[in-house]
Amino acid sequence: MPRKGVNVVEPLRGPAGSVRTPVSAKSTLESIETAAAILASSPIHQTPVLTSESLSTLAPIGTTLLFKAENLQKGGAFKIRGATYALSKLSRSELDKGVVTHSSGNHAQALAIAAKAKGAKAYIVMPETSAVIKKNATEGYGAQVILSPPLAEDRERVCQEVRQRTGAYFIPPYDHYDIITGQGTVVLEMIRQAKELDKPLDALVVQVGGGGLLAGSSIVAKAHGIPIYAAEPELADDCFRGFESGKRIERVVTSTIADGLRTPVGTRNFEIILEKVEGVITVSERQIVTAQKLVWERMKMVIEPSAAVGVAVVLFSEKWKSLGIKGNIGVVWSGGNVDLDAPMPWTVIKE
Amino acid sequence: MPRKGVNVVEPLRGPAGSVRTPVSAKSTLESIETAAAILASSPIHQTPVLTSESLSTLAPIGTTLLFKAENLQKGGAFKIRGATYALSKLSRSELDKGVVTHSSGNHAQALAIAAKAKGAKAYIVMPETSAVIKKNATEGYGAQVILSPPLAEDRERVCQEVRQRTGAYFIPPYDHYDIITGQGTVVLEMIRQAKELDKPLDALVVQVGGGGLLAGSSIVAKAHGIPIYAAEPELADDCFRGFESGKRIERVVTSTIADGLRTPVGTRNFEIILEKVEGVITVSERQIVTAQKLVWERMKMVIEPSAAVGVAVVLFSEKWKSLGIKGNIGVVWSGGNVDLDAPMPWTVIKE
Repeated sequence: MPRKGVNVVEPLRGPAGSVRTPVSAKSTLESIETAAAILASSPIHQTPVLTSESLSTLAPIGTTLLFKAENLQKGGAFKIRGATYALSKLSRSELDKGVVTHSSGNHAQALAIAAKAKGAKAYIVMPETSAVIKKNATEGYGAQVILSPPLAEDRERVCQEVRQRTGAYFIPPYDHYDIITGQGTVVLEMIRQAKELDKPLDALVVQVGGGGLLAGSSIVAKAHGIPIYAAEPELADDCFRGFESGKRIERVVTSTIADGLRTPVGTRNFEIILEKVEGVITVSERQIVTAQKLVWERMKMVIEPSAAVGVAVVLFSEKWKSLGIKGNIGVVWSGGNVDLDAPMPWTVIKE
Repeated sequence: MPRKGVNVVEPLRGPAGSVRTPVSAKSTLESIETAAAILASSPIHQTPVLTSESLSTLAPIGTTLLFKAENLQKGGAFKIRGATYALSKLSRSELDKGVVTHSSGNHAQALAIAAKAKGAKAYIVMPETSAVIKKNATEGYGAQVILSPPLAEDRERVCQEVRQRTGAYFIPPYDHYDIITGQGTVVLEMIRQAKELDKPLDALVVQVGGGGLLAGSSIVAKAHGIPIYAAEPELADDCFRGFESGKRIERVVTSTIADGLRTPVGTRNFEIILEKVEGVITVSERQIVTAQKLVWERMKMVIEPSAAVGVAVVLFSEKWKSLGIKGNIGVVWSGGNVDLDAPMPWTVIKE
């Protein structure tokens, strides 16, 4: 079932020391709590936690589902958290040189928005195969988009050129402790909100692509004694295979509909995940789009396919069911950025 | 631009006395406040009031938009309010005979849900041209669906037969004081919520089809000194024309994409609207679907075309702009029931 937009994604490589990123401490519960305090005084939203009787009854008996609605976050995804926190670590003179990243997705928009809020220039390297709508959206947030050929080495070279020309700092999409720390605030917030709703979480299910969100979430979850499971598309199951073998898979070739998850898990991310996560559960393309449609239909919320992967696990996975986990299950909706002019994903994916 | 599903809708006629509905007092602010208290102890949701910087900046300068999210209501629309209140007026023995209505839309599902909550049987007469998905949804709520030929006189005859056979009460979709009273609770709630958000309403824009929601809303708005405007599709502008001439238009032939508004204003409704509403503003099909898409895209909320008519007025109407109304403008999203397997409305309506 190959489709247009097949991505070959590898971690950014290059000569040692060629990647200038701000020095950052390893992610911990404490650093995530600090990040949450910093984000609280930024324009980032505290997104709501939503429940749905209708969806909960479709999950295994004894389940109450809670959804963290990061689709309602600024920029339409959780990515703004990591970007904003990473930028908060830069000095004024560093900010004045600007920031650079490569992304065709939510991280691009997030960095553009976060940089604008700090009065910093953002350079976004995008594959020239990116949809015009994404390029326009990123430029709409004030960033400068630089197109590159789609291969990882070309992208890297272009990124490098921008860095050399401008002195901009490289803020990678996921394989960076400040990004991991920033994304960890999603679940920190959710755990508190669930308690306030009198539905303290018994387990968490968080999707994994590069692993920024999952790694940050797992640090918080483990520290709170809440078991956390990863959700991944079968078609991009590098985290699952890496987790089973204990060795990170470095390359992913995939056309999963969950376009935010078409990346291999990062090195820093994988190390954390291996230590903190209970297991990785995969779901089919059909399960992903069926879950996505159910959320639109029953909850009237627009979520993107990547955001539906965790929902698909708790609704449809036999493996999840066999674990027999009951109670208040937290699922993160990672984003809501969908091309509304394209056919809806559930009308495209047939089995 | 005729499409499938053109509706010819007339008010239910018949020999005098043939329509058995519970006796009900005229709608007043007091009756609406009483209804709100009754609904508060029912399973009906208090839906949130949402704001959007992004949409507000598209409206005339000086506007802050507030949206009442009745798409998140039980059954996906405000209709459950009127149905629940109307049923609350029936005695146990009356409930035991059941209730009947004709509707292929949100009122059908609403009455089915409200009846189930009361342990009453609901008979829903639907045109045999209705989408299977709607029939299934209504049956899914436990109602008995009876198909009739699509003409008003056939539908009426079938309704009559059900009443004679079962003794069921007729709960019409809009032309009934208890329905008007129940729907009025939407705006009563919104006025309070807007104050709590420290954004007291300066004006209201509410769409009109049969006029249940608009009539109820206008009673509350007028009593609170808040000017209220009606929003209507150009293609179904019976309220606009009736309002201008002071004489109700009794028949509507329309294929507007806003399928919840394909009805003429009811008699009781029109009388109230003429007295309480400041003006009626119409919008084009293209304006409706553009507004709908903007809400999906920017706010990540699924609303149906009918719910976007008020949004279209405040974003795109020159007439609205010329009124120069500023401040906190309340708009009601009436519902979020969309066939997600069909092409999205904004991909269908071209201008």
